[in-house]
Amino acid sequence: MTPTDARTGVWLIGARGSVATTTVAGCAAIAAGLHPPTGIVTAAPAFADVAWPPLSSLVFGGHDPTDRTLPGKAAELAAAGVLPHDLPAAVARELAEADREVRPGGPSTGDTRTDDELIASFAADIASFATRHDLPRVVVVNVATTEPAAHPDDPRLPPSSLYAAAALRAGCPYVNFTPSTGLRSPALASLAADSGLPHAGRDGKTGQTLLRAVLAPMFSQRALTVRAWSGTNLLGGGDGAALSDPAAAAAKNAGKARVLTDTLGHAPQGEVHIDDVPALGDWKTAWDHVAFEGFLGTRMVLQTIWQGCDSALAAPLVLDLVRLVARAHQAGLSGPLPDLGFYFKDPDGGPGGLAEQFAALSAFVARLRTSG
Amino acid sequence: MTPTDARTGVWLIGARGSVATTTVAGCAAIAAGLHPPTGIVTAAPAFADVAWPPLSSLVFGGHDPTDRTLPGKAAELAAAGVLPHDLPAAVARELAEADREVRPGGPSTGDTRTDDELIASFAADIASFATRHDLPRVVVVNVATTEPAAHPDDPRLPPSSLYAAAALRAGCPYVNFTPSTGLRSPALASLAADSGLPHAGRDGKTGQTLLRAVLAPMFSQRALTVRAWSGTNLLGGGDGAALSDPAAAAAKNAGKARVLTDTLGHAPQGEVHIDDVPALGDWKTAWDHVAFEGFLGTRMVLQTIWQGCDSALAAPLVLDLVRLVARAHQAGLSGPLPDLGFYFKDPDGGPGGLAEQFAALSAFVARLRTSG
Amino acid sequence: MTPTDARTGVWLIGARGSVATTTVAGCAAIAAGLHPPTGIVTAAPAFADVAWPPLSSLVFGGHDPTDRTLPGKAAELAAAGVLPHDLPAAVARELAEADREVRPGGPSTGDTRTDDELIASFAADIASFATRHDLPRVVVVNVATTEPAAHPDDPRLPPSSLYAAAALRAGCPYVNFTPSTGLRSPALASLAADSGLPHAGRDGKTGQTLLRAVLAPMFSQRALTVRAWSGTNLLGGGDGAALSDPAAAAAKNAGKARVLTDTLGHAPQGEVHIDDVPALGDWKTAWDHVAFEGFLGTRMVLQTIWQGCDSALAAPLVLDLVRLVARAHQAGLSGPLPDLGFYFKDPDGGPGGLAEQFAALSAFVARLRTSG
Amino acid sequence: MTPTDARTGVWLIGARGSVATTTVAGCAAIAAGLHPPTGIVTAAPAFADVAWPPLSSLVFGGHDPTDRTLPGKAAELAAAGVLPHDLPAAVARELAEADREVRPGGPSTGDTRTDDELIASFAADIASFATRHDLPRVVVVNVATTEPAAHPDDPRLPPSSLYAAAALRAGCPYVNFTPSTGLRSPALASLAADSGLPHAGRDGKTGQTLLRAVLAPMFSQRALTVRAWSGTNLLGGGDGAALSDPAAAAAKNAGKARVLTDTLGHAPQGEVHIDDVPALGDWKTAWDHVAFEGFLGTRMVLQTIWQGCDSALAAPLVLDLVRLVARAHQAGLSGPLPDLGFYFKDPDGGPGGLAEQFAALSAFVARLRTSG
Repeated sequence: MTPTDARTGVWLIGARGSVATTTVAGCAAIAAGLHPPTGIVTAAPAFADVAWPPLSSLVFGGHDPTDRTLPGKAAELAAAGVLPHDLPAAVARELAEADREVRPGGPSTGDTRTDDELIASFAADIASFATRHDLPRVVVVNVATTEPAAHPDDPRLPPSSLYAAAALRAGCPYVNFTPSTGLRSPALASLAADSGLPHAGRDGKTGQTLLRAVLAPMFSQRALTVRAWSGTNLLGGGDGAALSDPAAAAAKNAGKARVLTDTLGHAPQGEVHIDDVPALGDWKTAWDHVAFEGFLGTRMVLQTIWQGCDSALAAPLVLDLVRLVARAHQAGLSGPLPDLGFYFKDPDGGPGGLAEQFAALSAFVARLRTSG
Repeated sequence: MTPTDARTGVWLIGARGSVATTTVAGCAAIAAGLHPPTGIVTAAPAFADVAWPPLSSLVFGGHDPTDRTLPGKAAELAAAGVLPHDLPAAVARELAEADREVRPGGPSTGDTRTDDELIASFAADIASFATRHDLPRVVVVNVATTEPAAHPDDPRLPPSSLYAAAALRAGCPYVNFTPSTGLRSPALASLAADSGLPHAGRDGKTGQTLLRAVLAPMFSQRALTVRAWSGTNLLGGGDGAALSDPAAAAAKNAGKARVLTDTLGHAPQGEVHIDDVPALGDWKTAWDHVAFEGFLGTRMVLQTIWQGCDSALAAPLVLDLVRLVARAHQAGLSGPLPDLGFYFKDPDGGPGGLAEQFAALSAFVARLRTSG
Repeated sequence: MTPTDARTGVWLIGARGSVATTTVAGCAAIAAGLHPPTGIVTAAPAFADVAWPPLSSLVFGGHDPTDRTLPGKAAELAAAGVLPHDLPAAVARELAEADREVRPGGPSTGDTRTDDELIASFAADIASFATRHDLPRVVVVNVATTEPAAHPDDPRLPPSSLYAAAALRAGCPYVNFTPSTGLRSPALASLAADSGLPHAGRDGKTGQTLLRAVLAPMFSQRALTVRAWSGTNLLGGGDGAALSDPAAAAAKNAGKARVLTDTLGHAPQGEVHIDDVPALGDWKTAWDHVAFEGFLGTRMVLQTIWQGCDSALAAPLVLDLVRLVARAHQAGLSGPLPDLGFYFKDPDGGPGGLAEQFAALSAFVARLRTSG
Repeated sequence: MTPTDARTGVWLIGARGSVATTTVAGCAAIAAGLHPPTGIVTAAPAFADVAWPPLSSLVFGGHDPTDRTLPGKAAELAAAGVLPHDLPAAVARELAEADREVRPGGPSTGDTRTDDELIASFAADIASFATRHDLPRVVVVNVATTEPAAHPDDPRLPPSSLYAAAALRAGCPYVNFTPSTGLRSPALASLAADSGLPHAGRDGKTGQTLLRAVLAPMFSQRALTVRAWSGTNLLGGGDGAALSDPAAAAAKNAGKARVLTDTLGHAPQGEVHIDDVPALGDWKTAWDHVAFEGFLGTRMVLQTIWQGCDSALAAPLVLDLVRLVARAHQAGLSGPLPDLGFYFKDPDGGPGGLAEQFAALSAFVARLRTSG
C-alpha cells in the first residue's frame, strides 16, 4: 500500500464536543465537494503540492465521557447556526461512523484505576481502533474542554496528560489543541523524549491571540511603545463556562500574555478577562484595547473587536495539524515541532509574531514536500 | 570632513504645516535629550549600529506659501495637545532657525512663470540653502497638503511634480510622503531615470493602511476569505479638508485599496470614506469593518478602531526616510527604492504585507550598514 | 360583526420584499404560537389591554412588480439566516395565501397610463381585495425599496406618491415606512386633508437613528456639547443598493440629521454614509462616532456599533403601525398622527427624543384604549 | 442678608483628589468667565431662572489626609491633559485659598479615637469653617476614593459614614458622590431621619451607567429582549486602583447592575469588570456589549465605547448637586431626595431610566423655582 492510498486515523479527545463535531462534519462535507476548504491552510494553493493525507482518507474516533452523540451534537450546532442547517443530514453517515468509534475514556467518578492502568486502557482503545481500520498511523488530538489547572502537589496526572501518555504508548503522534497540560507535565518528559514520536501544542490560536500575534509586531517594528494591552472575551459554549473559572483560565491567559512579551520584549499593563455568556453560544466576541505612545509621548489607542465562531475557527486548524503531524511522522521526525507555532498560543518555541511563524511553517512544509 | 561630521539638509515641501512643524520640533527635542526617540525606526536597537546622520546634524528649510510661521504653528499644535505644551518654548531657537530657511515657492495666484521657470526657481532656493549651510547633501521631502488629482489633459505639471523636478535638478534625493503626484508623472520619468538620484514614495502609511498591511496577510495565511473590507476615516486637520474632496481622495484611496489587492489577491467589496471633521483637529479616527468567511462558509467579522495623531505618526517616519535616503545617496544608490515600502501606502514595488516589508527594510539597512 | 371579530386588511407596497415577507411570515408564526411577540410594542404588557386587531385577524395583500414569490423570498431569507430555517415550511399556507393577493402595480417600463389612471388602477386593486375578503378596513403600508429622490421639476408623481394617493382614494389609512415621498408631495396635500383618513410616516426608525434618538437627549440633558456626530452604515440588501445612490440617500439622511438638530438644538459636524455591501445581505452594521466636549472643554468620545437584521427590526414595527392606525381609523381620527413619532426617523411633528416619543405613544394608546 | 448675597460653603471629603481639584479649579475658571459652564446642568437655559447659589459665591474646604496640595494636584492634572494647561496658573489664588481650608480628617494609622470622637472632631472642623467664613450653609460632598466594602461584623463605622455623620451633626446637607457607604449604614438611619437635613446619593453616574440608563429603556420600549449585557471599564486614576480590588468594586457593580434590573425588569447575563490601567491616568474607557433578541428570536448586538475623563465628567455634577441640595435645604426639604436620581448610579429611589429621571429633576427644579 503506497502512503497516499493509506487511510489515516484521527483520534479526538473530546470526540463529541463542538470542535470535534465540526471537524468530523466539515471534513466529510469538504471531501464530498459540498463546501470549499476555506480555513484549511494545507489546502491553500501554496501548500497544495504536498502529499497530504486526503480529507477523504481520514478515519475518526476518540474518547468522550458524555452521553450525547455526534449526530445529536451536529443537530444542536446546526440549530445554533454554527453548522449550515442542512449539513447534519448531508453527512449523517460519516457522523454515525465516527460516533461508533467513540469510547468513554475516564476516569469517571469513583474510578479506582491507577494512572498507569488508565493510560493502558486508553492506549488499548486507540490501538484497537487502528487495528480495526487497518490504519498505519493515528494522530491523537486533544480538543476536550479545558481542564482546571492541576494542583502542584497532586500526585495524579491530570486527564489531558493521561491521554497524552496513552497516545505515545500506542505509538501515535500527539497534538494538544487546548490549554490543558497534555504532554507539558514534567512526569512525561522522558516518555516524550524516548518515544520517537512527533508532537505539537499547545492551545490553538483562533481569535484574540491570533490578532495579537500580528498586531504586536507592528508596534515593535514601528518603534511605538505599548503601554497597556487589555482584553475581554465573551463566549458561551463549553469553553465559556470552563474558562470563566479562574483556575482553568490561568493556563490560557499565560498563553495570551506570552505572545505580547515575546513580540514586544516587555509585558504591558492590562488584564484579560474570559466571561461565560451562555446567550452567545459558540460565538465569541473579543475586545482588545491597546494604549500606546508615539513620537514625543503622544498617546494613541487601537481597539479591535473580533466576532467569530470558535468551532469554525478551530476545526480547519485541527485538520491542518493532523495532516502536518501525520506527514512529519511519516518523514521520521520526532519530538516537539516548534515550526508549528503558527497554530498555537503557547508553542514549543519558535518566534512569536505570526509572519515569522508563517515563514517557519512554509519552510517546514517545504521540507515535508521533499521528504516523502 | 568625514561623512558623519557633515550636516545633512532636509528641505520640506509644506514646511510650516503640522507634519513639518512636528518633525522640526521633535528632531530638536530628541537631539536635546528631552524625549526618547519613540516612533523612529532607525533609532531602534536593531538598526542603531548604522552610521545614520545624527538628528543633531539635520538642518531644516523648505517651501511654504502660507503666512504662518513655524513657531506660530508649533504654539497652535501645543494648544491642541498635538505637541507637549512646553515644547515650543524648549525648541524655540531651532524652530526660528528653520523658519528663516522657508521660501514661499509657488506658483501663487497670477503667477505667469512657466513650469520650467518655476522648477528652476525652486531648485535655486534649494541650492542656495545647501551652499549657505555648506551641506554636502539635502534630502527633499514632500509633506504638503494633498493636492487635487491632476486633470489628465492639463498640460501643466501639478505643484508636487514641480517640486519633485526641482529636487532632482538641484541634485537632491527626493521623498514623497503624500498621495500627490510628485515624481509619478510620466513627464518626469526620463528626468528621474537620468538623475542618478535615489527617491522614494508615496503616501506615508500611518494608520488605517498600516493596520490593513498587517491584518490582510493574516487572513491570507489562515486561508480565510475576505468578503468585504469597509472603512471610514474622520480627521480634521488640513488633510481632512483636502481629502474630503473626492478628487484629492482618489489617489489616497487607490493606495489604500492597493494593499488589499496585493495581499489578498483580490479586491473585496467595500468602500473607504474620508470625512473632514474639524472638531477632531489633527486627531484621526479610522474604523474598519472586515466581513470574512471561515470553515463551511461561517460568517465572521473583525472591526478595528485606530485613534491617532496624524502628525505624531508621520514625523518620525519623515526622519527615518531622511536618514535612509541620505545614506542610500551616500552609498551611490539611485532610482526608486522599493525596499522602503514599509513606509508607504503606494510604494515603488515590493511586497504588500508589513512583515515582508519590514524584512525588506531590514535587508536594505544591512546593506547600508556595510556600504559606508 | 363586532370590531374585534372583524378581520383587518394589510396592503403592502413592496409585498414580496424582505420586510413584507418577514412581516407576513412572522405574523403567522406568532399567531400560531410558534414564537413570542418579541419586538411588537403593542403586544407588550403595558399596551396589552387595548382591543388591537389580533395578529390572527390580519389579511395580507399588496403590490409588487417583481417576479419572485413570497414563499420563494421566505426560503431565501431562511437560507440567509434572516428567518428561522424551519419557518417557511411552518407558515407555507399563509405565505401562499398572501402571495395570491399580490398585484403587479406599476408603472412598468413603457406604461403609457397617466398618473390619475395609475392611481385609479391601484385603488381598484385595493378595493377589490377588501371586497373579496369582506374587510371593513385595509391599512396600506409602504415597505418598498427606497425610490430615487424626485426631480423637482418632474411633473409626474413618484411611484410612492401614486400608491399613497391610491390608498386614500380607496378609503384606506396609509403608513409610509420608507424615506420615499409618499404623501409628502405638495400635490397630495389637499387630497390628504380632505380624505378624513389617518396617516403616518415616514421612514421607520430601526437602527442608527433609533440610537441617536436616545443618545442625543442624554448629551442635551447633561449640558454636554456635541461637536461632531459621524456615521457609517453598511448594508447589503435591496436598501443597500438603493441607498448607496446619493439621490436615494438624500431623503434618508435628512431624516437622520433631523433627530440631531431636533434634540441637540444645532446641527453638529459630521456626515452619514450608507454603503452597499452585498456580502452582508440583510444584516446592517452602523458605526457612530460622537465627539463631544465636557467641563472646561475636555474632549471626549462615544462610539456605538449596531449590528442588526433590517427586516427583523422593521417587521414588528409594521405590525404595530397596522394595529395603531387601524384603531385610530376605527376611533375616527384623521390626518397625520404625530404621536407615532416613536416609529419614524422623519415624523409628522412631535418631540425628537425617544423617551418623549414613547410618552406620546403611551398617551395616544391610552386615548385609543378608552375610545372604542 | 438676602439669600443670593450669602456665600455657600462646599466641604469636600477627599478635598485634594482629582474630582475635588477639578471642581474647585473649574468653578473658579467659569466664575471668572474663562470657560463656559459646559456640563453644569443647573446652568443650562432651561434651569437658569432659579436662584441658584452663584459659582462665584461658593467657598471650598474639606477633609483630606494626603500630603499633596490642591495647586500641586492641579499642576499634575494639567500635565496629564485633564485640566487645560494654563488653568492652574489662572486660578492659583482660588486653589490656594481652598487648600488652606483642608483638614486631615482621619482616622490615621494608630488613631485611638472612638467613632464618636472622630465624628465630633470632623463636625468641629466643618463648623469652624462655616464660622470662619460666615457661611449660612455648608454642603458636604464625599468625593474621596472608594473605600473597601465594610466587613459586616465590624463594629466600627467605615470612614465615609463617619464623615456623613459629622455632616449631619454639623447641621449640613450631605451628598455622597461615591459608592462608599456614607449615610447608607443602618447605624445612621435614625440620625439621618431626625436630622431634618436633605441628603442625596449615591455614586455619581458619569459614564457606562449613564449610557445604560438611556439604552436599557430603549430595549424595553421597543419590546426587544436583552439576553446579556457585558462591560469592561479601564481606568487608571485612584479609582482604577481602588476599584480593581473586588471588595471595593462590589458596591459600584451593584449600582451598575441596578440600572439594568430597574429598567429591563430582569437581570441579563453578563459581568462588569473594572481594570486598573495606570497608563490611562484619569481617562476612562468603557466597552459595553449587549446581546439582544428581536422578532422571531433574531440575535443582534449593540456595542458602545465611551472614552471620557472621569474628573471632567464628575466635577460639573458635583457643582450641580451643591446648588440643588443648597436650595433644597434653604426651601426646608429634608431626608433623601429621590428626585436627584438623574445624578446617581444607586439613587434613593425614583425611576431607573434617564429620561424619567430628567423629568423628575425638572419637576423638582420647578418646585425649587417657586419655593424661594
